[in-house]
Amino acid sequence: MSGDHGPDEAPWELGDLGDWPPEVFREAGHRTVDWVADYVARIETLPVLAQVQPGEILRSLPANPPEHGESFGNLLADLDGVVLPGVTHWNHPGFLAYFGITASGPGILGEMVAAAFNTNAMLWRTSPSTTELEQGVLDWLRGMIGLPAPRFGLLTDTASTSTLVALAAARESVPGLDVRERGLSAPGMPRLRLYTSMEAHSSVEKAAIVLGLGREGVRKIPTDSAFRMDVAALDAAVREDRASGWLPFAVSATVGTTSTTSVDPVPAVAAICAREGLWLHVDAAYAGSAAVLPEKRWCLAGCEHADSLVTNPHKWLFVPIDASALFLRRPEVLRRALQLVPDYLQTSAAPDAVNLMDYGFQLGRRFRAIKLWWVIRTFGVEGIRRRIAEHCRLAEVFASWVEADPGFEVVAPVPFSTICFRAVWPGITAAERDARNERVLERVNADGRVFLSHTKLCGVYTLRVAIGNLRTEERHLRVAWDLLRSAREGEG
Amino acid sequence: MSGDHGPDEAPWELGDLGDWPPEVFREAGHRTVDWVADYVARIETLPVLAQVQPGEILRSLPANPPEHGESFGNLLADLDGVVLPGVTHWNHPGFLAYFGITASGPGILGEMVAAAFNTNAMLWRTSPSTTELEQGVLDWLRGMIGLPAPRFGLLTDTASTSTLVALAAARESVPGLDVRERGLSAPGMPRLRLYTSMEAHSSVEKAAIVLGLGREGVRKIPTDSAFRMDVAALDAAVREDRASGWLPFAVSATVGTTSTTSVDPVPAVAAICAREGLWLHVDAAYAGSAAVLPEKRWCLAGCEHADSLVTNPHKWLFVPIDASALFLRRPEVLRRALQLVPDYLQTSAAPDAVNLMDYGFQLGRRFRAIKLWWVIRTFGVEGIRRRIAEHCRLAEVFASWVEADPGFEVVAPVPFSTICFRAVWPGITAAERDARNERVLERVNADGRVFLSHTKLCGVYTLRVAIGNLRTEERHLRVAWDLLRSAREGEG
Repeated sequence: MSGDHGPDEAPWELGDLGDWPPEVFREAGHRTVDWVADYVARIETLPVLAQVQPGEILRSLPANPPEHGESFGNLLADLDGVVLPGVTHWNHPGFLAYFGITASGPGILGEMVAAAFNTNAMLWRTSPSTTELEQGVLDWLRGMIGLPAPRFGLLTDTASTSTLVALAAARESVPGLDVRERGLSAPGMPRLRLYTSMEAHSSVEKAAIVLGLGREGVRKIPTDSAFRMDVAALDAAVREDRASGWLPFAVSATVGTTSTTSVDPVPAVAAICAREGLWLHVDAAYAGSAAVLPEKRWCLAGCEHADSLVTNPHKWLFVPIDASALFLRRPEVLRRALQLVPDYLQTSAAPDAVNLMDYGFQLGRRFRAIKLWWVIRTFGVEGIRRRIAEHCRLAEVFASWVEADPGFEVVAPVPFSTICFRAVWPGITAAERDARNERVLERVNADGRVFLSHTKLCGVYTLRVAIGNLRTEERHLRVAWDLLRSAREGEG
Repeated sequence: MSGDHGPDEAPWELGDLGDWPPEVFREAGHRTVDWVADYVARIETLPVLAQVQPGEILRSLPANPPEHGESFGNLLADLDGVVLPGVTHWNHPGFLAYFGITASGPGILGEMVAAAFNTNAMLWRTSPSTTELEQGVLDWLRGMIGLPAPRFGLLTDTASTSTLVALAAARESVPGLDVRERGLSAPGMPRLRLYTSMEAHSSVEKAAIVLGLGREGVRKIPTDSAFRMDVAALDAAVREDRASGWLPFAVSATVGTTSTTSVDPVPAVAAICAREGLWLHVDAAYAGSAAVLPEKRWCLAGCEHADSLVTNPHKWLFVPIDASALFLRRPEVLRRALQLVPDYLQTSAAPDAVNLMDYGFQLGRRFRAIKLWWVIRTFGVEGIRRRIAEHCRLAEVFASWVEADPGFEVVAPVPFSTICFRAVWPGITAAERDARNERVLERVNADGRVFLSHTKLCGVYTLRVAIGNLRTEERHLRVAWDLLRSAREGEG
């Protein structure tokens, strides 16, 4: 174990059975950090959206793995030669698609530290720090977004998983069913139904499929003109379903829908849930972060009544993917739904400690809290507020450009950092307008400096600009806007 | 954006709205790499099992997040002062509990690169390299363990998730049910049942709970004297269940059970599955890696018939948690079970490309393939073989010590790198022996140099030594063995 050989010479591996010696790791690590620093520094010279054809990257890989170890230099070189051409750069300031996100510097380094610890916090004792740092940092986050205490917080990989386990708890919360033991096909089992809006994320419907409720077990409630759940329609749907034999059990409301970032009227939804005995889940995966701003705190109104709420630090809180925060008002229901302790994990040590494996179906849990801890501490709460406020300001700026141009229209309110809009032309059909907007988007994205996405609103093709990267500045939006205007002109 | 200020001075953040400038990242990154290199170099000076009491780490955190950003030096200092005392060091060579694992150097650095890219490969176009590198590297892994081509491979977070989605596909594969649309409580829906052994991992039962089958939807088949599924009992159970109205639909066989690493007789199980039309899932989360060795290739016999097979590179392939490889023979069944494409993800680009979001319930997918790619290329296939063979050799050495000592007995075959054994004393009751073994384990683990785990076999308390860390050498096993012998003597 010496530093005589660098990672490119690699004689360490010929006779050695172990890992890299620490000095080899140190040198390879410094070089990787330099590669990442250079990547971020030059990211604007790369096209945001990968320009390759399907199969191109796969064909550039050898068909078989190397029999003998390769030098570290090869690995780094292939990041440039093999990987980069096929990367769509989510960490690029011109990435304005889906939800713009950032892997911030402290987040990236926190991820490396988590990998080095390699802990699995299935039981408290299998890494107390992993469990307790998660609890502590999530309590910070809870306070930052103004949820009342106490809430039980845990980190999962994605909002899809957070919503899935929350709805598993909801399913178990129905008195007298005991789905956990008997399953949904047991004799006498009613058909369970959950409610979410037409604008809800597909993960709600996927959760229903996984949970055995089926797509028929989800009733999608229409939205109002601002894409918010129509509460009167929810009320009527629940009553109607009860009358026809369904058993309503949960509502998933959205704070910040994927298409338009609309906010469902959670206080009114919560009132219906309370009256009807329904579990209230809130998907605030994107917009929850906005609640760090006093002026945006309204978006979580009513969420103090939520049985479960998910918000994703990997979306708009500068933490690398993946990290989704799930807050529970009654964690014991989730534990009752999913706790199973095999003999080899029974322990008499620390009987009252929290074993996070009891709150999910995944036994493995990595040390996700470090990156969130490092991001919050590096930027500070006021620094995070300033950055999120800036993204909202940039969105207002962009929306003002769109509004001022008769060739475009803003088609949904802009409560946060995402703008839905479309190009318009006088005297063309709706179908022709859709086709032209699709071509406008393709033309803008082909340029390589920005990447925008689209959605459909009431069936109409709609363009989206979503701001969430720490390096996005007004100049990037200006590029997008100039490209949009010229692409529109190219269409007639 | 300059390198004038280091991460400890942090004036960059006072007026800046962005991320760290690249030069600040570079300096903080080098310091973090140095911290990790030092951590690994001194890891043997730290107690493997955390010595803290529940709540101790949580209480050492401030109740509220910092309003203003802190220096990077604080963050690094708190790794030592706050985090380390509560870490159970899974990356320690004396970690012999559960399944010993390694976050190898290239794996740690690959994780950092993945975090920097921060891609989400939901669609092919949202990062072609993430999708295609995953396909390419998993095809390498498929060949390395001798599974026939073609297989569709994908990476999930954990074996729990791999098994869950595989069983969701199994559920959808039953003709005429359409669980995806109708749910399990639809009129006329039969009660589905799956089969796994008494020794199977709890994730199979948890998957059944999540999927709405309930614990009653899992029938646990007894095992033989070597803890392998009793195929005659499986056969009888399936027939009996059909006769009494259940609809058998899947078997989950295990290659390398968690307690003893026993291997179910997959060829015979596969024959039953073929005859009965059951989906065959194989959980080879731990032992799949052993199949890189020609002399261990037998363990995957019959697995060419598996509809789905999971093996975890984060277990015994030196990749940091999390990375679970799922191989599918008929990926279209999984896609049919879980594909849902919302409007905002509909794209006419690359219509034939693989969109990995279609093969799971999690929309978010990070760039897990890089670390696996880097590990395979750094060690080479022969280097991986040598290392896994060494772990198996170490297990034989340890088992030989246990066998040679009349105060101990080996209680299960040792096909791989895990030894199940217990201390014995003449003339005591079984209950007393259990109690003494439990105290022996506590005493050994309290020393701090090694960490062993336990299980129960046929209800009897059993000690386990599991070898899988690249830094584990015979001297660590010698420490464990000396501690075990002296702890046994301390019990009488």
